[in-house]
Amino acid sequence: MKLNCDLGEGFGCWQKGLDAEIMPFIDYANIACGFHASDPLTMRKTVKLAKANNVGIGAHPGYADLIGFGRRSIAYPADELIAIIQYQIGALQALCENEDTCVSYVKPHGALYNDMMRDLNIFTLVCQAISALKYPLPLMIQALPNTSAFKTIAEQYGVPLWFEAFADRHYQDNGLLTPRSNANAVIENEDEVLARCRLLIDKQQLLSENNQNIALQVDTLCVHGDNPQAVALVKQLRALIDDMYK
Amino acid sequence: MKLNCDLGEGFGCWQKGLDAEIMPFIDYANIACGFHASDPLTMRKTVKLAKANNVGIGAHPGYADLIGFGRRSIAYPADELIAIIQYQIGALQALCENEDTCVSYVKPHGALYNDMMRDLNIFTLVCQAISALKYPLPLMIQALPNTSAFKTIAEQYGVPLWFEAFADRHYQDNGLLTPRSNANAVIENEDEVLARCRLLIDKQQLLSENNQNIALQVDTLCVHGDNPQAVALVKQLRALIDDMYK
Amino acid sequence: MKLNCDLGEGFGCWQKGLDAEIMPFIDYANIACGFHASDPLTMRKTVKLAKANNVGIGAHPGYADLIGFGRRSIAYPADELIAIIQYQIGALQALCENEDTCVSYVKPHGALYNDMMRDLNIFTLVCQAISALKYPLPLMIQALPNTSAFKTIAEQYGVPLWFEAFADRHYQDNGLLTPRSNANAVIENEDEVLARCRLLIDKQQLLSENNQNIALQVDTLCVHGDNPQAVALVKQLRALIDDMYK
Amino acid sequence: MKLNCDLGEGFGCWQKGLDAEIMPFIDYANIACGFHASDPLTMRKTVKLAKANNVGIGAHPGYADLIGFGRRSIAYPADELIAIIQYQIGALQALCENEDTCVSYVKPHGALYNDMMRDLNIFTLVCQAISALKYPLPLMIQALPNTSAFKTIAEQYGVPLWFEAFADRHYQDNGLLTPRSNANAVIENEDEVLARCRLLIDKQQLLSENNQNIALQVDTLCVHGDNPQAVALVKQLRALIDDMYK
Repeated sequence: MKLNCDLGEGFGCWQKGLDAEIMPFIDYANIACGFHASDPLTMRKTVKLAKANNVGIGAHPGYADLIGFGRRSIAYPADELIAIIQYQIGALQALCENEDTCVSYVKPHGALYNDMMRDLNIFTLVCQAISALKYPLPLMIQALPNTSAFKTIAEQYGVPLWFEAFADRHYQDNGLLTPRSNANAVIENEDEVLARCRLLIDKQQLLSENNQNIALQVDTLCVHGDNPQAVALVKQLRALIDDMYK
Repeated sequence: MKLNCDLGEGFGCWQKGLDAEIMPFIDYANIACGFHASDPLTMRKTVKLAKANNVGIGAHPGYADLIGFGRRSIAYPADELIAIIQYQIGALQALCENEDTCVSYVKPHGALYNDMMRDLNIFTLVCQAISALKYPLPLMIQALPNTSAFKTIAEQYGVPLWFEAFADRHYQDNGLLTPRSNANAVIENEDEVLARCRLLIDKQQLLSENNQNIALQVDTLCVHGDNPQAVALVKQLRALIDDMYK
Repeated sequence: MKLNCDLGEGFGCWQKGLDAEIMPFIDYANIACGFHASDPLTMRKTVKLAKANNVGIGAHPGYADLIGFGRRSIAYPADELIAIIQYQIGALQALCENEDTCVSYVKPHGALYNDMMRDLNIFTLVCQAISALKYPLPLMIQALPNTSAFKTIAEQYGVPLWFEAFADRHYQDNGLLTPRSNANAVIENEDEVLARCRLLIDKQQLLSENNQNIALQVDTLCVHGDNPQAVALVKQLRALIDDMYK
Repeated sequence: MKLNCDLGEGFGCWQKGLDAEIMPFIDYANIACGFHASDPLTMRKTVKLAKANNVGIGAHPGYADLIGFGRRSIAYPADELIAIIQYQIGALQALCENEDTCVSYVKPHGALYNDMMRDLNIFTLVCQAISALKYPLPLMIQALPNTSAFKTIAEQYGVPLWFEAFADRHYQDNGLLTPRSNANAVIENEDEVLARCRLLIDKQQLLSENNQNIALQVDTLCVHGDNPQAVALVKQLRALIDDMYK
């Protein structure tokens, strides 16, 4: 069970996230590529920080909407969507080469992530974009009770899938996230988050908001590093995981 | 003697340059990378067109100034300048991979090109940016009577240099271009341009505006593809070169 | 019957449209405001050209998407949509003041126009944005057989409406435009366009693609200035209208 | 003696500055206009906050360089510089109208401010930009021992000048700021800042870094609101000024 976190989300003089604090405790850093957040220099610094902490570097491409932080859907034509994904991955790859490292996976950001999960056509375009690059890169997507449709498409394009769950979010009985509009969408109790993580590692299960068992194949947990509480939680998750796999 | 041309300089719905008309007659396409012109989809189409015409693909990075077309100097900090150059090269490289090809050299654009030619510190940063990438890429710069300072720095970073001259521009006796502010900066007579090209290939010489011989080591001529007259001239240059090297 | 045209749609060094050719023949210029096209200097030049030709100046605000030319819908929060509309109108107003003139109406562009016509909530936000400005500005929208819902909202905000029809587009029997995806969406025959215009002026009617009469209250025809054929048509429309109202 | 502060310097989701904390203690808010920082919605919120605190609203136009926060000089052509200044003022004015208020002065930002202070040609363009707008707006510039050249130009364009000093910066004997590259550029001792402020109000004098008296006509002090210490200092300056003018 790996921990992944969105990082490098500053822009120019604007900071965001406690990157330096959280980097030592995660396995994978999803690094913004300049379209929804970040800029070339911020990307370079984030890559350097990831490498120094032996953290795997993921390209975190998003829609071209800085003001909206990539959280608003934009209906790109198919060939343009492929092109903006490749452009962002390639840009990050060059900055990785400056630090003698490389991009090792892709996780789409925000509205692009959501669009990919609800529309297999968009998921297909994401796979196409990745598969046309020179080096094979895995794609990180959301773990669902049934991911067969995603797997079929990804296999067709030769793209390995990594599945992530959200440690601090409630799930509906159908295995989808409880929408953020619901009052109980986010789990704030640390012990509960840790218990959920333990259950996932032990039994590949999550409890839904109605206490139903949901079977999920999960490779990695998505964690947050926006504030000190979030960082504290990640440290505990790290300790728990290290302990369980000892 | 190769012909190189700035291409892929449209942006979104805005066209610029007769790319399809001129591509069959040149050897190297300097492709804009989205900072001073172009966008991911335009880059992809230009790469495709270059590959179909067996034309070498150069990254043409510029300052981040779309409205000014990268023609205004911006004083970037050293590490940011390196990062924006690498970002642009990497982005183009990914779009090349989509077409099963690759970036084969770098030529800075506009104000970045001019700054690099007049300031060895900036030239050094450009070399540093290129040399830190995984695959070695040559750098195209302006041919001058004395390029030893440039060569020394480039060798230090292991960056091969390609030298270009401007077929349709007058030169001063010192081997620098006659500034565009001068009335006679541009040579409009086609026969004169062809004669200058012949002299360069035959004797590695250019005539200055005062008819002095300037000795120049030139690997490639920079040509333009903005209008039908420019394209017609390139066709004649192509025929001349093919004929001389037959 | 007035003629309106989208103008000032260049961006930086990129030109678009035959603004100088068409300006003498129209009544209203819808001037892009820098979000989907144009930039401050282009806006200033377009305003100057409009004033020199005694053409009314309309703010033509769009979504912030230069690469997509404002043709892709973006789901802005309500208060941000109001703010981007006001920002663009105010920016154009200042450039008008530099030429001793002023913005005299508003016509949304592209996806914002389409969203406003299909979603009364968005239309309401557009009205709200305009009504909160210091000087009252009319809003130009599409003429429909039944515009009562639009009129009710606009009156509530004290925003006068101007209705436009498209001289060179086919209409469905229900008074909506034949979608551009249909082969017969655009009318290319000049005489047919002129005849439709004459019918509109004489009888406030348009013929649908099935030759049904559609009653439309139309204040202005939207024309195009992208190419010489379009300009030639506008000259004929101008002559026709001048002749009919003589 | 008024207090002015740069505010509204967030961008999209990125926050910057303790706007709500400092607004009650200042007289003038210099509000970023979207070119070097801010966006339409952030501008609107900042205007609302200023009005609620009865704070005068200044347009704070900058160069179009978000990543560089407008701190890098860009050599705009004269007409484009005028146009970008007017565009930004007009945009802010429209957002002010939404809150039933208005822009009441202009203070250029960052590199534009510095360029205007060191180059009278650029200062002239700033005056020209402001004077061509419909309503007269004062221009805030740096107080210097001799401002006659600035006054002559400003009078020619009918632009009133407001002069500001920097409460927490050391000055050279010639009345210019000690460059930030010097170790002693910034005065960190609160009591010293307060004493300087008192001297300015009492005797229109500042002490240079060599303890020379510099005579300065100062209308307003520029203060900062980036961090809690800065806000605490502003509260003390506010109390001091209120007390002295009681």
